[in-house]
Amino acid sequence: MKEVVAGIDIGGTNTVFGLVDKTGKISADSSLKTIDYPEIKDFVLSLSSAIKKLLAKKPALKLVGIGIGAPNANYHKGTIELAPNLAWKGIVPLADLIRKKIDVPVKVTNDANAAAMGEMIFGGAKKMKDFIVLTLGTGLGSGIVINGQMVYGHTGFAGELGHTIIVPGGRDCGCGRHGCYETYASASGLVRTVLYILSEMREDSILRNIPPSELTAKKIAAAAAKKDRIALEAMDYTAERLAFGIINAIGFSSPEAVFLFGGLAQAGDMLFNPVRKYVEMNVQPIFKGTVKILPSGISESNAAVLGAAALIWNELIK
Amino acid sequence: MKEVVAGIDIGGTNTVFGLVDKTGKISADSSLKTIDYPEIKDFVLSLSSAIKKLLAKKPALKLVGIGIGAPNANYHKGTIELAPNLAWKGIVPLADLIRKKIDVPVKVTNDANAAAMGEMIFGGAKKMKDFIVLTLGTGLGSGIVINGQMVYGHTGFAGELGHTIIVPGGRDCGCGRHGCYETYASASGLVRTVLYILSEMREDSILRNIPPSELTAKKIAAAAAKKDRIALEAMDYTAERLAFGIINAIGFSSPEAVFLFGGLAQAGDMLFNPVRKYVEMNVQPIFKGTVKILPSGISESNAAVLGAAALIWNELIK
Repeated sequence: MKEVVAGIDIGGTNTVFGLVDKTGKISADSSLKTIDYPEIKDFVLSLSSAIKKLLAKKPALKLVGIGIGAPNANYHKGTIELAPNLAWKGIVPLADLIRKKIDVPVKVTNDANAAAMGEMIFGGAKKMKDFIVLTLGTGLGSGIVINGQMVYGHTGFAGELGHTIIVPGGRDCGCGRHGCYETYASASGLVRTVLYILSEMREDSILRNIPPSELTAKKIAAAAAKKDRIALEAMDYTAERLAFGIINAIGFSSPEAVFLFGGLAQAGDMLFNPVRKYVEMNVQPIFKGTVKILPSGISESNAAVLGAAALIWNELIK
Repeated sequence: MKEVVAGIDIGGTNTVFGLVDKTGKISADSSLKTIDYPEIKDFVLSLSSAIKKLLAKKPALKLVGIGIGAPNANYHKGTIELAPNLAWKGIVPLADLIRKKIDVPVKVTNDANAAAMGEMIFGGAKKMKDFIVLTLGTGLGSGIVINGQMVYGHTGFAGELGHTIIVPGGRDCGCGRHGCYETYASASGLVRTVLYILSEMREDSILRNIPPSELTAKKIAAAAAKKDRIALEAMDYTAERLAFGIINAIGFSSPEAVFLFGGLAQAGDMLFNPVRKYVEMNVQPIFKGTVKILPSGISESNAAVLGAAALIWNELIK
């Protein structure tokens, strides 16, 4: 029988999952709506049934573990804790609940750590021991690998670069504080920056015709591709701030590479080129030329399932 | 025979060294003047002779390793690289040179990493797996331990928190950049802050009678102890900035404790109390109450030799 793990990504709206072998091949996958399950017990029941159903269709496969990426997940305890975007309140002992239904090793971490695991086991960081993955979506998530190990820290919640403060007294953040990295370096940060640049500059722009509530990173990148000056300025400003946080992270752990992932990273060279320029320009001299800024080596569509699968494969192959 | 290691701390002016057993007891120690040796070969010859002399006096001891703390030391390569405060230019293969004179394992790292090793093996972090040591002297050095391992990073130079930028466009730094952590959170940062507070406030102060070139952290702490308002304000401002960098470091690695060490830390409760207050007040909610801010568990006078000794003991007892 061929060994596989289940990789599960729990989001606020959807939960996607698949059976993944040691090489990163997804044999079968499916999904369910997280929001249909206000009670965690019902969710676990439905999810475990769905995984068993996938396995029943593939009798040649043997399930040897389950990896889960979920918001506010605590790796040490196997819990989801006080997740604002999930219906399940308080501290949810997710790993234990799943294990009661399917008796294999279960590990849980947040989606950015899972993305970093995916990068290490299946993606662009296969031979690296020190790297950082930044997921640039609505917020900024980060997964940090040092000495070949994921950094979970004393609490299990390490790697919260999105809420390190890069501008004292800066932009309001959802965490209740000000100037957090993710308020600048994320898809939503780029939208905020367009509004700021529109206030600062008088140039005409197609972005002046879009209601702020409908602005997206994708539309801004499209405008920048057409040489819209406001969009280009906003990209440059965002790249500089993104580079700023990367520079401070380099001072901490001196990684071999920083991988950029998620919606904002889709802007490609328009983002990567100025980020690389600002990192080299402003990093501490001792680290100049030592860090690669790279796109993820995993396709966006499979990343969540592969990252969760990598989390548990990494434990099993130790 | 009792096994000992040599712990060596190379400073710009003096080099101190001692023979240290597994429990942190220093059996014999000595020193020589670094500045007397503009040639590295002469330095290595003199140092190795001095160590052999110490050993000759203690025939019951057997040397099993050498640990060295030195500026700009690269742990991976055993080198000192481009150290601005040492006479030896370029890249000095220190570990190799020493090993040719005394054939035992030799490890090299910078003094802040050595301080963190000392804390882990002999000091207040004996049972900790995740902690950070900040050495608050003329500059700010940092040693970071994650999963029970020192963070050296891809380059061997990781843990440069003193040169992470906490105030974009802030104070001039010796590294050629602006707003680095150490320009605020160090003994010399405190002196700069007094000058700033003197410019901002009109209060009388004993510090107005001291030429800026003669101001020291010690004099400022003494004034604060006497309730001098300028000194108290400067302490509070420094504590807030020191806390700010600690908060960002917590977001990175979620340590169990942060140890403060060196000249500025001598201010004791006057510094620790406001630092603790500002960390709890401003840290990301998920980390509130999770981090201890502690004084070093090693006496300042032995710390350099014990830290260097801990570096090599940690390798030998692996």
